[in-house]
Amino acid sequence: MDVEAYVRQLGQQARAASRKMMAASTADKDKALREIAVAIDAQRQVIQAENARDLEAGRASGLDTALLDRLELNMSRIDGMIEGLHQVASLPDPCGEITELNYRPSGIQVGKKRVPLGVIGIIYESRPNVTIDAASLCLKAGNASILRGGKEALHSNQAIAKCVQAGLARAGLPEHAVQVVETTDRAVVGALITMPEYVDVIVPRGGKGLIERISNDAKVSVIKHLDGICHVYIDANADLDKAYNIALNSKTHRYGVCNAMETLLVHEGVAAAILPRLAEAYSAEGVELRGSAEALKLLPNIQKASEEDWDTEYLAPILAVKVVTSFDEALAHINRHSSQHTDSIVTENFSLARRFIAEIDSASVMINASTRFADGFEYGLGAEIGISTDKIHARGPVGLEGLTSQKWVVFGDGHIRQ
Amino acid sequence: MDVEAYVRQLGQQARAASRKMMAASTADKDKALREIAVAIDAQRQVIQAENARDLEAGRASGLDTALLDRLELNMSRIDGMIEGLHQVASLPDPCGEITELNYRPSGIQVGKKRVPLGVIGIIYESRPNVTIDAASLCLKAGNASILRGGKEALHSNQAIAKCVQAGLARAGLPEHAVQVVETTDRAVVGALITMPEYVDVIVPRGGKGLIERISNDAKVSVIKHLDGICHVYIDANADLDKAYNIALNSKTHRYGVCNAMETLLVHEGVAAAILPRLAEAYSAEGVELRGSAEALKLLPNIQKASEEDWDTEYLAPILAVKVVTSFDEALAHINRHSSQHTDSIVTENFSLARRFIAEIDSASVMINASTRFADGFEYGLGAEIGISTDKIHARGPVGLEGLTSQKWVVFGDGHIRQ
Repeated sequence: MDVEAYVRQLGQQARAASRKMMAASTADKDKALREIAVAIDAQRQVIQAENARDLEAGRASGLDTALLDRLELNMSRIDGMIEGLHQVASLPDPCGEITELNYRPSGIQVGKKRVPLGVIGIIYESRPNVTIDAASLCLKAGNASILRGGKEALHSNQAIAKCVQAGLARAGLPEHAVQVVETTDRAVVGALITMPEYVDVIVPRGGKGLIERISNDAKVSVIKHLDGICHVYIDANADLDKAYNIALNSKTHRYGVCNAMETLLVHEGVAAAILPRLAEAYSAEGVELRGSAEALKLLPNIQKASEEDWDTEYLAPILAVKVVTSFDEALAHINRHSSQHTDSIVTENFSLARRFIAEIDSASVMINASTRFADGFEYGLGAEIGISTDKIHARGPVGLEGLTSQKWVVFGDGHIRQ
Repeated sequence: MDVEAYVRQLGQQARAASRKMMAASTADKDKALREIAVAIDAQRQVIQAENARDLEAGRASGLDTALLDRLELNMSRIDGMIEGLHQVASLPDPCGEITELNYRPSGIQVGKKRVPLGVIGIIYESRPNVTIDAASLCLKAGNASILRGGKEALHSNQAIAKCVQAGLARAGLPEHAVQVVETTDRAVVGALITMPEYVDVIVPRGGKGLIERISNDAKVSVIKHLDGICHVYIDANADLDKAYNIALNSKTHRYGVCNAMETLLVHEGVAAAILPRLAEAYSAEGVELRGSAEALKLLPNIQKASEEDWDTEYLAPILAVKVVTSFDEALAHINRHSSQHTDSIVTENFSLARRFIAEIDSASVMINASTRFADGFEYGLGAEIGISTDKIHARGPVGLEGLTSQKWVVFGDGHIRQ
């Protein structure tokens, strides 16, 4: 198979489809989403049969239990896909609004219109339900998409793709508005990320390694989602009950997620009052603590943190703890070690809260709230394609608007430039 | 000289300065801009003496007249720099505004705050006044900048850099908020565009070759400004006087600019009525026409256009002319050959105007207006760092807002995620 030629064809088809999608009505896009849901509901048996083939192959090739679990499409996950489609259909259309339409001194009217990005490539790993997730968000935002899922989920993804095709056809939208790559050849990724003439943006969903590889080689813009080394800083002016709840929730609500706290900073003025109490609660949850020298004085039984710990995203029940002597030391530590994903301060001091907001350069900056809130649904985006750690275009949780662009519209009456 | 180490040092210094700039007040930033203007006014003699060294070296190395002209800092250009600084100082601060701050069902408040991007690298060519232009816009938006000018302007740029330093110092802002590269070693560019840990965005200002090289090699986000193959389409329903004025202005107002029309499309229904009249006017202005077969029937004296002409940015008094049989043919031609910079339709038909806006995928889409309006000043941005042909982040004319980002702010009262 000539992978380059195959991807080029997908790209050309996607570009052509994206022209039509640009002019598609909200009603047609929503109809397609609902028809895809109908098709999935009707094809449950087929989808599960194809998924069983993937699961069998996965077991034969020695996939571990966690990966096999992610690969499985049981009835409740199929329900989830159907529900997700209806949810996206009921969200407002992110495209079409013209804003800031004003007359200029020359007499022309100038405004900005929100429009689809064009063609979006999504590269993801083993979970086949991401296929519906990604397809539905791209479709709602008026984009054509090329979806390249994990090789373990090939049959499941192809079965889902057929339902997507059926839904697009019933709504009269172009069949190439969503294309699911049909080969597991890894060269597809390399080709997809280097065809800026056909692909406008790449959204990789997966581990840090995948995303770094793609970012390094891409000639197309990438909406990156790298690591989450998130901090909670308990200030000297913190309400200690709030601090206790937030520090516990930020770490223990879920471990393997990018918005979990990985380092806890505590002002020396309140360290003795809060740290032993927190340590007890963490211990009960099975969280291992690694402390700075000052932290060890209060918690003599924990391990000493190495320099490396301050730069580690554990994604596990491990937490680095540092006692700091001032707000400024906390600020400097965060700005040096944070991955600029999400950082939170616990304080009752108004001026320090304002400074934290102004001086912490992270995608989400929080006052008296758990880092676990950094999430598209919690922020009210309705849906989330990922959490961007980039500064340009889309930052933090990315919803439908992150899959759009704005173009300038100019209205005149024969106006020329003097 | 170890260029890599030198650029790394610039980067570290810029990153540290950007942290302080993030918290700098609007008053301090504006004071710095005005103090830089004062310093330039006081140093006119020195700047001109250093500029004379560059001019002399340029003449000795055989620079052509056009380049020497761009290099020269005469009194009126120095006046222009001073005026530009005052203009940027009087623009509203693009940063600080918190929008969409709403309560969520969980009880947290979530909003978006407009903030500086961080560190911006600007790579430009021979005109030394770009140094002030770029420095002032980056500074106003709260960014630290690293400016790498053309080697021909080294002494001029260093003299200007001293004035910038004086102004920053008088306003109490960090000296590394603006750094002008002190070497002409071309390896600086290669280092600058591959240090995402220190540089957030690169803005190349120069020819297409420079920008393509940078985009290809960059590991940092690039705000690209590629070519402008702009179209005017005269529809069958056009007011022919408006069409005449717009077609003439879009081509002949200036030739070497990216928003000049390069291809004129005319509906066959009005071609006989408008093309000979336009051809006469173009001829009087010295514009060479290259026509499609149908255009040649009406204008037998012009050259035939080759396929290549439809994809050429002439930046010169040359214009490709095509007669089309329908609105859809015009649409297809533009979406195939446009560089997605600026395209305009001349029509009195409301429905076709709406379709043109919806279906042309360009950064600026115009109805009954000259393509020459695609410009930051004409659009009311107050200033322009460039015109982006990208779709993500900033599209079309890029003003101060394009040099900023948005971060999420979350306010709680001890809120945790359930």
